[in-house]
Amino acid sequence: MTASSELDDSFHVFDTTLRDGAQREGISLTVADKLAIARHLDDYGVGFIEGGWPGANPRDTEFFARARTEIDFRHARLVAFGSTRRAGAKAAEDPQVKALLDSGAEVICLVAKSHDRHVELALRTTLDENLEMIRDTVSHLREQGRRVFLDCEHFFDGYRANPEYAKAVVRTAAEAGADVVILCDTNGGMLPAQIGAVVATVLADTGARLGIHAQDDTGCAVANTLAAVDAGATHVQCTANGYGERVGNANLFPVVAALELKYGKKVLPEGRLRETTRISHAIAEVVNLTPSTHQPYVGVSAFAHKAGLHASAIKVDPDLYQHTDPALVGNTMRMLVSDMAGRASIELKGKELGVDLGGDRELVGRVVERVKERELKGYTYEAADASFELLLRAEVAGSRLTYFSVESWRAIVEDRPDGTHANEATVKLWAKGERIVATAEGNGPVNALDRALRVALERIYPQLAKLELVDYKVRILEGVHGTQSTTRVLINTSDGSGEWSTVGVAENVIAASWQALEDAYTYGLLRAGVEPAE
Amino acid sequence: MTASSELDDSFHVFDTTLRDGAQREGISLTVADKLAIARHLDDYGVGFIEGGWPGANPRDTEFFARARTEIDFRHARLVAFGSTRRAGAKAAEDPQVKALLDSGAEVICLVAKSHDRHVELALRTTLDENLEMIRDTVSHLREQGRRVFLDCEHFFDGYRANPEYAKAVVRTAAEAGADVVILCDTNGGMLPAQIGAVVATVLADTGARLGIHAQDDTGCAVANTLAAVDAGATHVQCTANGYGERVGNANLFPVVAALELKYGKKVLPEGRLRETTRISHAIAEVVNLTPSTHQPYVGVSAFAHKAGLHASAIKVDPDLYQHTDPALVGNTMRMLVSDMAGRASIELKGKELGVDLGGDRELVGRVVERVKERELKGYTYEAADASFELLLRAEVAGSRLTYFSVESWRAIVEDRPDGTHANEATVKLWAKGERIVATAEGNGPVNALDRALRVALERIYPQLAKLELVDYKVRILEGVHGTQSTTRVLINTSDGSGEWSTVGVAENVIAASWQALEDAYTYGLLRAGVEPAE
Repeated sequence: MTASSELDDSFHVFDTTLRDGAQREGISLTVADKLAIARHLDDYGVGFIEGGWPGANPRDTEFFARARTEIDFRHARLVAFGSTRRAGAKAAEDPQVKALLDSGAEVICLVAKSHDRHVELALRTTLDENLEMIRDTVSHLREQGRRVFLDCEHFFDGYRANPEYAKAVVRTAAEAGADVVILCDTNGGMLPAQIGAVVATVLADTGARLGIHAQDDTGCAVANTLAAVDAGATHVQCTANGYGERVGNANLFPVVAALELKYGKKVLPEGRLRETTRISHAIAEVVNLTPSTHQPYVGVSAFAHKAGLHASAIKVDPDLYQHTDPALVGNTMRMLVSDMAGRASIELKGKELGVDLGGDRELVGRVVERVKERELKGYTYEAADASFELLLRAEVAGSRLTYFSVESWRAIVEDRPDGTHANEATVKLWAKGERIVATAEGNGPVNALDRALRVALERIYPQLAKLELVDYKVRILEGVHGTQSTTRVLINTSDGSGEWSTVGVAENVIAASWQALEDAYTYGLLRAGVEPAE
Repeated sequence: MTASSELDDSFHVFDTTLRDGAQREGISLTVADKLAIARHLDDYGVGFIEGGWPGANPRDTEFFARARTEIDFRHARLVAFGSTRRAGAKAAEDPQVKALLDSGAEVICLVAKSHDRHVELALRTTLDENLEMIRDTVSHLREQGRRVFLDCEHFFDGYRANPEYAKAVVRTAAEAGADVVILCDTNGGMLPAQIGAVVATVLADTGARLGIHAQDDTGCAVANTLAAVDAGATHVQCTANGYGERVGNANLFPVVAALELKYGKKVLPEGRLRETTRISHAIAEVVNLTPSTHQPYVGVSAFAHKAGLHASAIKVDPDLYQHTDPALVGNTMRMLVSDMAGRASIELKGKELGVDLGGDRELVGRVVERVKERELKGYTYEAADASFELLLRAEVAGSRLTYFSVESWRAIVEDRPDGTHANEATVKLWAKGERIVATAEGNGPVNALDRALRVALERIYPQLAKLELVDYKVRILEGVHGTQSTTRVLINTSDGSGEWSTVGVAENVIAASWQALEDAYTYGLLRAGVEPAE
């Protein structure tokens, strides 16, 4: 469980995804999940991984036991979280403290009360006994050869209520041997200017090494963390993707990116910053939450440009329109195609898709016109790359790419007296000169159509077997005439190695879904390198 | 289009959801959507609503024309966004500038370049001509009696590259009559300390009234906005829920909440802050994005506590564990171990609907259980009052209110070789002892079902003739298994004098729509005072 890293100890990136992050509503981590996340965090290069509270629940105890043998940490040190000893007891005899030692973690992060009212109301002990609990527990763990950090819970609210007591907690911990004393904005109500002022004063008055732990209840956790660093804190506690209780914690990725890219401070091992996007998405997968599309630095939208106005200048100098090079954090610039788009963005998009428009002004103009005309009908191409590529290729080739031509289809939904539903679809089409009629059932009309289309085509195009519909979105446009509105459907399809989006628009949801399905299959065959047949 | 508000002009809350917010990937607003959002923002009490760029696209032109006659603004002033005139032309002759005047907006927010390299590369003109474009356009609009704000695009990057030129832009705009000059962090790469320093310097050096427009690319847009206010800015540009290009813009709600609750500054009319959560969710519904559960102040998780350790202390003093009283922003504290729909809220809701639950603890408990059980399946009663009332009455009466009982239904969608679609539905039901079979066609399967249901029932219940479906929304829940996900349909129905919402959830969109339709008709008959028949 030792780690080596080229970074010295002067600045700590401390991750608490596995402990505080797991408090997020909707997250429930198994031991295997925790091990997977710990590997990702170590791979990313954080200095410390807080793994949980051994002894407090069997899952965390098991995690520490397994992490010790199953993970060969390259960068990170594993940290056990726990509490100061009970009031009136001895740290050396406290079973909770013993469980921390038993975890084998070489670093222990203790939480202590630093707000006088919390000591009295929640801990139900005296202010002096709280200080004694801190002194005793820190000293005991130090005597057992462990490195100790101390989290001051509710520090900033406590400092407002009783600054002298809050500072006494910091001094006591530091004097007893805590390496870092972390000031926690546990309720998350602070703003950067307040954080900066308090950290600066406490640093000047106590001389202790300080850390910061910010919750995001004001939407300022990243800024609060940086304000503390500006004021002299040298240890930041964050969670991957900002997971955490209530609104969440300071998000590890924008904090690290700001320190590396804006402050020019090396806080990760060489070359790891480029893994930011990948690690963020991988951890989202493990906790089973969709990665936020709009997360700073790592979201798929984080470097996506829409406005046609800018596209021509982006061609000249992309750095005029992005605050940092997305490649530095493993992300990429994307041009979105929409009715706001002009010629330049179509050309850029063509390049991105590998379709050379060769500066053909007339062709580009035709594509722009076609996009505008279709978007007026309700299509949207910024969220449907594959449909856009098919449109683009149709204009380049002079006709639509065709693997099959549909004669007709039909979907039937029937409610039976017993309350169940029968969904049946029939598809009639031509492929490679052959007329095929296929019928299938599904759990809904679109699913039935999807299955009927597969049944019809899979013999001729076995590549379709790999295709899976992974997301399906419906939007009613101009929802003022009830069911007579236009319907837009977006479908995401995967072939196991990649994902693409297609769009359909029609006066009803089934017809719109059908269009999106047709594009999805056509694009899947194109991706698979199949030659168009018709 | 005049507005009155008890707030003076000394501080501006300026919302740009309809212009900059609409740049978010995945958002595509119809004119009806824009009008609905403008009403919500005015209801919330922002001072200015930037509605779009009249003249740049037909949708925005139509929005201004309709907003002028269709919305009776109580608090907000409508703002038209546009650009300075073209290089080498005259503002008085520039069609784009004319379109701004034609929009009828009394306030115009002009965007201008303030970064020297952008002037040269994107605008392709000289630095002097850019200043002249600003002077000429601002003066012209002022002469036409409009109030003018000026957005300095890429101000902070520009200031870093050429501070003298950036300041010259501010001075030129102010001297020409712009009331507020807004410093924009267009690429969103700034951090609060940088923003604060630049705003303070520019304010001291130019004396102009300054505003701030922050993008969220570093995750600091809220903090950047507040840093500018700390440094003397008196105008903040934000978007609802932080919608905007790339990562997004400064989120209106935490900015307003911080100013009101942390700064003690009144920036909304009296009593409006309590509407924050409702307005945030309502706007998310209009743009058809799921409200973020973890958004500061307004997310359903924002004041949610994992009970355990803190439960007893929270009972003694909840303020120890929350940074502000959630009721102030219209949110509520939730203990995650307890019911989401508590007994108290069910009783209140019953009272609101005129259903006396008479303090019947057992009955209220049954309703809570039923709501929990249905919401687990995907129903949502927050947005479906009529379905909730039917559920409540069913529990009170011991059985569901019934005007007709459905034996079965069937919907067929057929795509014909000519590309048109046939949509046909058949309904078999019993009403007042009579078995009725009816078939109808429609422009989609739900519309066909709606018509068949009317054909079947209108002879027996002529009251149904007045009913009209006025809105229809589909949401796919848990969209990870493609078309196999659960579908939720919300339908709004009107009888000319009022409107009500019903919900249906099923494995497919047609079956879910049917449920919502059945509730819609049942509720319509209840409203019309018709006695239940079965």
